[in-house]
Amino acid sequence: MVSCSLKRMDEKIKTFSKFGDTGNGGITRFSLSPEALMARAEFKKRMEDIGATVVIDDMANMYATIPGTEKLPAIAAGSHLDSVKQGGNYDGVLGVLTAMEAAETIVREGIPHRHPITVMVWTNEEGARFEPAMMSSGVVCGKFEKAAMLESEAKDVPGLTFGKALEKSGCLGSEANRLSADNYAAMIELHIEQGPVLENEGIDIGIVEGVCGMINYEFTFVGQADHAGTTPMKCRKDALYAAVKTIQYLHDELDELDSRLVYTTGKISAHPNIHTIIPDKVKFTLDARHQNPDVIRQVLEIIHKIPSEVEKCQASYKEAWARKTVAFTSELVDYVEKSANEFGYTSKRMYSGAGHDAQYVVDMMPSTMIFVPSVDGHSHCELEYTPTESCLKGANVLLKTLLYIDQQ
Amino acid sequence: MVSCSLKRMDEKIKTFSKFGDTGNGGITRFSLSPEALMARAEFKKRMEDIGATVVIDDMANMYATIPGTEKLPAIAAGSHLDSVKQGGNYDGVLGVLTAMEAAETIVREGIPHRHPITVMVWTNEEGARFEPAMMSSGVVCGKFEKAAMLESEAKDVPGLTFGKALEKSGCLGSEANRLSADNYAAMIELHIEQGPVLENEGIDIGIVEGVCGMINYEFTFVGQADHAGTTPMKCRKDALYAAVKTIQYLHDELDELDSRLVYTTGKISAHPNIHTIIPDKVKFTLDARHQNPDVIRQVLEIIHKIPSEVEKCQASYKEAWARKTVAFTSELVDYVEKSANEFGYTSKRMYSGAGHDAQYVVDMMPSTMIFVPSVDGHSHCELEYTPTESCLKGANVLLKTLLYIDQQ
Repeated sequence: MVSCSLKRMDEKIKTFSKFGDTGNGGITRFSLSPEALMARAEFKKRMEDIGATVVIDDMANMYATIPGTEKLPAIAAGSHLDSVKQGGNYDGVLGVLTAMEAAETIVREGIPHRHPITVMVWTNEEGARFEPAMMSSGVVCGKFEKAAMLESEAKDVPGLTFGKALEKSGCLGSEANRLSADNYAAMIELHIEQGPVLENEGIDIGIVEGVCGMINYEFTFVGQADHAGTTPMKCRKDALYAAVKTIQYLHDELDELDSRLVYTTGKISAHPNIHTIIPDKVKFTLDARHQNPDVIRQVLEIIHKIPSEVEKCQASYKEAWARKTVAFTSELVDYVEKSANEFGYTSKRMYSGAGHDAQYVVDMMPSTMIFVPSVDGHSHCELEYTPTESCLKGANVLLKTLLYIDQQ
Repeated sequence: MVSCSLKRMDEKIKTFSKFGDTGNGGITRFSLSPEALMARAEFKKRMEDIGATVVIDDMANMYATIPGTEKLPAIAAGSHLDSVKQGGNYDGVLGVLTAMEAAETIVREGIPHRHPITVMVWTNEEGARFEPAMMSSGVVCGKFEKAAMLESEAKDVPGLTFGKALEKSGCLGSEANRLSADNYAAMIELHIEQGPVLENEGIDIGIVEGVCGMINYEFTFVGQADHAGTTPMKCRKDALYAAVKTIQYLHDELDELDSRLVYTTGKISAHPNIHTIIPDKVKFTLDARHQNPDVIRQVLEIIHKIPSEVEKCQASYKEAWARKTVAFTSELVDYVEKSANEFGYTSKRMYSGAGHDAQYVVDMMPSTMIFVPSVDGHSHCELEYTPTESCLKGANVLLKTLLYIDQQ
């Protein structure tokens, strides 16, 4: 059976890890930064070298297409090249590199394919420089207003908008080049898991059935700021203690729900945050994710049971944002499973807890994802690592899945 | 029975409330600021008008002395004129104004007294501009090294040290003028309670027996920062949850101790404090105060029972600072009680939960404090308020106490 090359895969990973190298095993490669432009140029050069035609759309997404034998819509595969600050060498870029390797294998081995094959680069997925995350896929898939996105201001350069950065970078292409249901038959995104499940269970391939629905709530407790030394305990309205009681309540109740539920209080703030003053205002967040909307509904019921007064403090909460569970295209999910089986790789069906460009694309055309393990579950940090052997397995499953779709 | 004047007391409070007036019912009067210098000038002028001689020591503390009929050490009364940012019109300044009013009453009514009577202004009690709090009384009473204090840098003006501000302000006097056991027989400080106890119980005068001992601890929890969406609950090392469990443990255990114990978690921080990332480092403080060292020892035992691992996170703690319980001079405490009784005021023996200059002075000479009620217990804020009638009761008790000491 034809498979991708370990040596080429390794070389690709090493080369792209140089663009934005922090010197500590990771990269900082903000969207449209000089480091990102170097990575994009390298992508273009390599794809043209194997005979691809490279075009850019009006949100700077790149499309490198090798022709097929028939006049059919293209099959796309890819991910993003940008990173968070001090991120790793795998999140996003591995989805581009495995798609490049799959395309290169097709070309070098002369594997016949009816559809054109397009290797894609989504721009500004992380949102680390210009908010929001998944900006360019969001515009292409009709989730965000383009005009508003162009006004998004860079966090590192005051006054620099995404629109201005687009013009200055030379990455501004044509709207006609966008991924669309007319010109494309499907889109596949390979990604690292960003969690420990595959590694812990010794599994090669995550067959991603969809993306978990999630809710994000902000809780506020308002009490009374008083002197820590002169206010008897029974006279206090301690907003931090009200918050602590509520976090404990949430843990106690949420732990009773499905074991696949994940929930997190990542952010907390206290005012005035002085060790000798009883806090009068405390806020914290709750992020909760599950693939089953019924479980998310149960989470909401638990939140709604929080009384308006906790420990004599006013308690309130509001939804900051939410997203519904996304299901990927079942035929494509099955192809991924079949491909993994053919190579003899162990695999597991799972949902993604993190958001990805493919979750927007699936509303427009058949789409799915492939996960490879993350060592120790590390992600968004310089420790992020996936052995090249595991990446190669992902590339092989991607290659095979593309060929299954081609035969459809 | 001779008593102080309600009209004069009211006028004094109104006049001094102008120096640093925030326009919202309070003041911002940082030590050695232009506003503080105006208040000090007003103090000097008024005291000279009633025949006092005003001198300053090398830490900018002011001493306004009216002569007695015999060659004896002076009896001092006073407090501080500086405030926190957006503080109130009573904390500190009321101890100066009631002492001024007591001295003015003695002069106007021609009340004979053997000892000189000195009205004092302690400099930089709040530590709001130059740390630490109670700086100048601390130096005079041998608690702090003067050289180190002169190097303390202003929080509002980079590079401005307390020493430089002292020279620029014209407030630098002579070390020979310091309060000392040779030249002074006693020091009395009147202060607002800064808590709700007197008001809640409808009591006029707090007879302050001492200052509560206190400990201040900082707790640190170190876990693992992971993605909120991709890390199963059982794989987490959530430093915030470890902190929440520990705060709850502290409440559960400390609530079992003496009901006069007060304890506070005023400060908390989480890292990286992003709603989609499990916190890897959380710190919080615990401030605990009680008059009985045995109770403080029990608090320490409860802290020492915290295991080194909480919710799979490393837990550690360290003492940030501590102070022992301070007892005021029992004869003077009795004089305060006797004085309150003579005027028919209700009174209650109590400990101060907050720190005051008098706690340093008592190690050098007989000393005590008088509390008046704080409406709603508010302090260190613009809402701080004590009706002039209550202030007058305090001034009368102070006057009578000074005269008892004089007859000693």
